[in-house]
Amino acid sequence: MIPRKVAVIGAGDIGVGWAALCASAGWPVAIFDLKPGTMERASIEVERRTRALVALDRAPESIVERGLTELVHAQFLSEAVSDADWIIEAIHEDVAAKQKLLVGIEQQAGDDALISDALISSSSSGLPPTEIFGRMRRLDRCLVTHPLNPPELIPLVEVVPTERTSAASMNRAVEYLRSLGRFPIVLKKSIPGYVVGRVSAAVWRECIDLVLRGVISVDELDRAVSLGPAIGWAAAGPHLTYHLAAGEGGIRSFTQHLLASFESWWQQLAHWAQLDPEQQRALTQSIERAYKGKVEFLREARDRRLSAILRALEQARAPSESESG
Amino acid sequence: MIPRKVAVIGAGDIGVGWAALCASAGWPVAIFDLKPGTMERASIEVERRTRALVALDRAPESIVERGLTELVHAQFLSEAVSDADWIIEAIHEDVAAKQKLLVGIEQQAGDDALISDALISSSSSGLPPTEIFGRMRRLDRCLVTHPLNPPELIPLVEVVPTERTSAASMNRAVEYLRSLGRFPIVLKKSIPGYVVGRVSAAVWRECIDLVLRGVISVDELDRAVSLGPAIGWAAAGPHLTYHLAAGEGGIRSFTQHLLASFESWWQQLAHWAQLDPEQQRALTQSIERAYKGKVEFLREARDRRLSAILRALEQARAPSESESG
Repeated sequence: MIPRKVAVIGAGDIGVGWAALCASAGWPVAIFDLKPGTMERASIEVERRTRALVALDRAPESIVERGLTELVHAQFLSEAVSDADWIIEAIHEDVAAKQKLLVGIEQQAGDDALISDALISSSSSGLPPTEIFGRMRRLDRCLVTHPLNPPELIPLVEVVPTERTSAASMNRAVEYLRSLGRFPIVLKKSIPGYVVGRVSAAVWRECIDLVLRGVISVDELDRAVSLGPAIGWAAAGPHLTYHLAAGEGGIRSFTQHLLASFESWWQQLAHWAQLDPEQQRALTQSIERAYKGKVEFLREARDRRLSAILRALEQARAPSESESG
Repeated sequence: MIPRKVAVIGAGDIGVGWAALCASAGWPVAIFDLKPGTMERASIEVERRTRALVALDRAPESIVERGLTELVHAQFLSEAVSDADWIIEAIHEDVAAKQKLLVGIEQQAGDDALISDALISSSSSGLPPTEIFGRMRRLDRCLVTHPLNPPELIPLVEVVPTERTSAASMNRAVEYLRSLGRFPIVLKKSIPGYVVGRVSAAVWRECIDLVLRGVISVDELDRAVSLGPAIGWAAAGPHLTYHLAAGEGGIRSFTQHLLASFESWWQQLAHWAQLDPEQQRALTQSIERAYKGKVEFLREARDRRLSAILRALEQARAPSESESG
């Protein structure tokens, strides 16, 4: 199942990524942002990131070019959503701004019968769906589809329904995402930060703490996580990692031998909930110093590694694993 | 710099992994365990895991076979450490047992001048090095080299000195590890759990919590982490991920827009330090149910994915990145 047209509202990094992903599948996309400056950058960036997917071997050139031919940089919200049957909200993480925009989108539906059945999804990374869509009249076609950064490369998309999202809308979102080569997971219930935000926040807090305590530098920490636990988790998630880490006995044997270590660490992990201004300054400066003047180079290298990993995982996937691996 | 002979003391999963890794480099290895049952399994497992590295394209067959020819399943501690210039302690995570074993190893040095200059490293995943080696006379040649599971595949090794480890011993450990294709990182100071244990504990606690709260099932959680944040972190560590996630503004712009979200999540993350028996039972059962009856299949699939990711990262590494990426 593929949509007639996708409207992406919000042309920051996530919106541009959604647009690049949909265009790379040859789908007609309109992108719109309220800020003209953002739109200017977006017109260049969507094309660049869509074409980069060809260079990274993630999309065939002919389909990408078809998608780019149909790409519309809309001047008005009404132009963007007109005729779209999937509308993706991708503005900044501010619940009031999202609510206001979404009410505006729903009002278009009154004027334009064509979008009355459009699926409307928010890219929020952790706000309660019931709040995000709280001012809309119809919730049955609304849900969260949270991608990671960059959305055109990382497969996971968290799908989080409101209390009144219809099963048909859920299925439709999952099918759209699968058609885009994404891996949607549907949360059984909404929780602030969903799954990815919470796990990432847990990781980042400890990583910040280790740097601020002087245990390790920013770039050594990054390499340690990359070449250590992250490679492990990319090959097998955390629970499976430990189930496989203790020989025949599995998780039972693992907890017998190592739960005590984990409990002693849990006792001592960073548990602060805020960075004070001094810590924030120290962190920002350390990260900027570690990666100064090479952001573009590092981004390209990151994307090259990401696409290489994706290709490797696709190749390593045995047919029999599709259900169980 | 490569050692004349490596002695691995402890033939559980980590010891077997060290032995397989060293044998796959063609190095002479002796492995020893106090429990005869463990040694029996180890004799089969070291060969299997060393040869698996050929099948996984991680080591050339001729070198692996040379290493396996020289592999010794020692019957006594003295036989294992005799003539070794790198002794790797890899028994279970119990500080008193490690201390006792290490004193025994040091006593061999009195009888056998050949090992008096051996480097002695512990595979502890988080105990203070100064405690582990606390009962030894000479600390200058002692340090922690903590690998991940499986040690023959995951490149990262944490190197943690005692307060009296010599710079020469540190350099020697780093060189040995690099000769084995490992990526050693040296911690600036010791902290319980080191870097990997703490970051892993932070991840696992939240992952356990999400399953126990019914937000997501064990296998969906594992896939979500694998195909989402873990792929991202494998391509760029946590700090770099966020530095690259907000366009031109880098980490400064990221914190401006998203620190508030992180702070709200930090406030709410799991902060328990113990699993009560009921929770432990629920977790164990959920993990066993999710992966029942296919541990061997899943381990092979995991190792296939791991080696594919490693190869992908090696291929994606541009020459100019060796210093900065």
